[in-house]
Amino acid sequence: MKHQLMMSREELEAFLRREFPQIHLNGDIWTILEVAPLRATMRMAYHESQIRPGGTISGPAMMTLADLALYVAVLASIGPVGLAVTTNLSINFLRKPEPRALIGECRLLKLGKRLAVGDVTLRSEGADEIVAHATGTYSIPA
Amino acid sequence: MKHQLMMSREELEAFLRREFPQIHLNGDIWTILEVAPLRATMRMAYHESQIRPGGTISGPAMMTLADLALYVAVLASIGPVGLAVTTNLSINFLRKPEPRALIGECRLLKLGKRLAVGDVTLRSEGADEIVAHATGTYSIPA
Amino acid sequence: MKHQLMMSREELEAFLRREFPQIHLNGDIWTILEVAPLRATMRMAYHESQIRPGGTISGPAMMTLADLALYVAVLASIGPVGLAVTTNLSINFLRKPEPRALIGECRLLKLGKRLAVGDVTLRSEGADEIVAHATGTYSIPA
Amino acid sequence: MKHQLMMSREELEAFLRREFPQIHLNGDIWTILEVAPLRATMRMAYHESQIRPGGTISGPAMMTLADLALYVAVLASIGPVGLAVTTNLSINFLRKPEPRALIGECRLLKLGKRLAVGDVTLRSEGADEIVAHATGTYSIPA
Repeated sequence: MKHQLMMSREELEAFLRREFPQIHLNGDIWTILEVAPLRATMRMAYHESQIRPGGTISGPAMMTLADLALYVAVLASIGPVGLAVTTNLSINFLRKPEPRALIGECRLLKLGKRLAVGDVTLRSEGADEIVAHATGTYSIPA
Repeated sequence: MKHQLMMSREELEAFLRREFPQIHLNGDIWTILEVAPLRATMRMAYHESQIRPGGTISGPAMMTLADLALYVAVLASIGPVGLAVTTNLSINFLRKPEPRALIGECRLLKLGKRLAVGDVTLRSEGADEIVAHATGTYSIPA
Repeated sequence: MKHQLMMSREELEAFLRREFPQIHLNGDIWTILEVAPLRATMRMAYHESQIRPGGTISGPAMMTLADLALYVAVLASIGPVGLAVTTNLSINFLRKPEPRALIGECRLLKLGKRLAVGDVTLRSEGADEIVAHATGTYSIPA
Repeated sequence: MKHQLMMSREELEAFLRREFPQIHLNGDIWTILEVAPLRATMRMAYHESQIRPGGTISGPAMMTLADLALYVAVLASIGPVGLAVTTNLSINFLRKPEPRALIGECRLLKLGKRLAVGDVTLRSEGADEIVAHATGTYSIPA
């Protein structure tokens, strides 16, 4: 199975900024660090809108990072051809993340005509330990 | 198995407001409608911070509602006895929600000493159809 | 959303027997108790092929019951029109089942053109407590 | 995080044979190929008890392989210290497996005092493509 990159990192950044302006409401929290065929790496800044009292990053913030990394990996692989939607997301929270940026690495395990499935590994920036692990499915429009 | 309510709706509202002030940053989005032993119903207002362009409620907003409904059901059943944390959340997105408030109904399927497991059914306010369905596990501290 | 029954209980039993003879290799373990639009109830006999030493029903046996109940609910709703395949199954094991037959009740939460999603509640025969709870997705061929 | 191997491959094989004789009822289907700290690789022979008409390996057979690989990885890491039980298993079926043996590679993402979480990647023997991907949680007795 050969796959090629249909959108560059810069094109994806511009696409997100245009289509999802609200994710930048609280500042530049989300950055695409890298894309490659079937892969994407995203960074979520450590920002007060994402944390719980005590400084812990909230579960929903981690789910958002996982969902977004999957979405970017799908777009990078199929191009901006309509509205892919998440049909399923499953996440395991493994450890308390550090009080700093969180990195989500997505790889697509399957890129079919109708469904894309991938997993996302979340780590605190600069750390080895896995903080959370998610698996998700995107439905691709015909 | 008999279970009783350890915190009233009002106590839970006050607890959330005190412990998670940031979920109210964008206004009064989250309301606890009802609690009963092993059950909780929450309402998420239709608010621009929760929607995507075009008016669709975002996936992460729905995950937040599911997670919060589970958390409230757990607290209602065990009381404010320390820090329960989500260990797993799995959600299926079934239909596009209506552009209005979303209601999440949680029932706990198990309330053990170490783990609580529940599911949450999400519907647009006033509608019958299920918009999303989540299952989650909370780890209860010793 | 109106749905009607496309296959009767008897037709479904005959279909399973014809298409999946191997599930009856160890005797008559699987029975369809009831079908209705978007619903199916299956019974798994308490049989040595399904149990672990000590008499506990094995996890994989419970997953098989969940998968089969979903499959029957899908077939009952769309008819025997080709090969529906499971794309995702997620199960939570909640309690040790009793050493007797296990009942799986499935309801479809969504029956779309491409995907069907349902959940299955497993209980020991005659008991109220939920032993396991599964959620699954079937992909429906075009 | 340093982890060491608490049981060798041979000890684990002997343990399974002693504690779960029924998984060998249909012949020598299950083999532990390799264990390492936080890792285990298992092989499921291509056997008529695991296949559907047409030669496809059944979904429940793949779930069994995933569950068993997780169990072996947990035992290898904590030793035979009582009854670890699966609390959650989530699996995505990605492609039709080849009509030959299936290999399941498990890595533990977390090995805590109470919970172990891991994922399992399933491939047809000798092939690169991922056939299915599972994530599971084991509860470890006190």
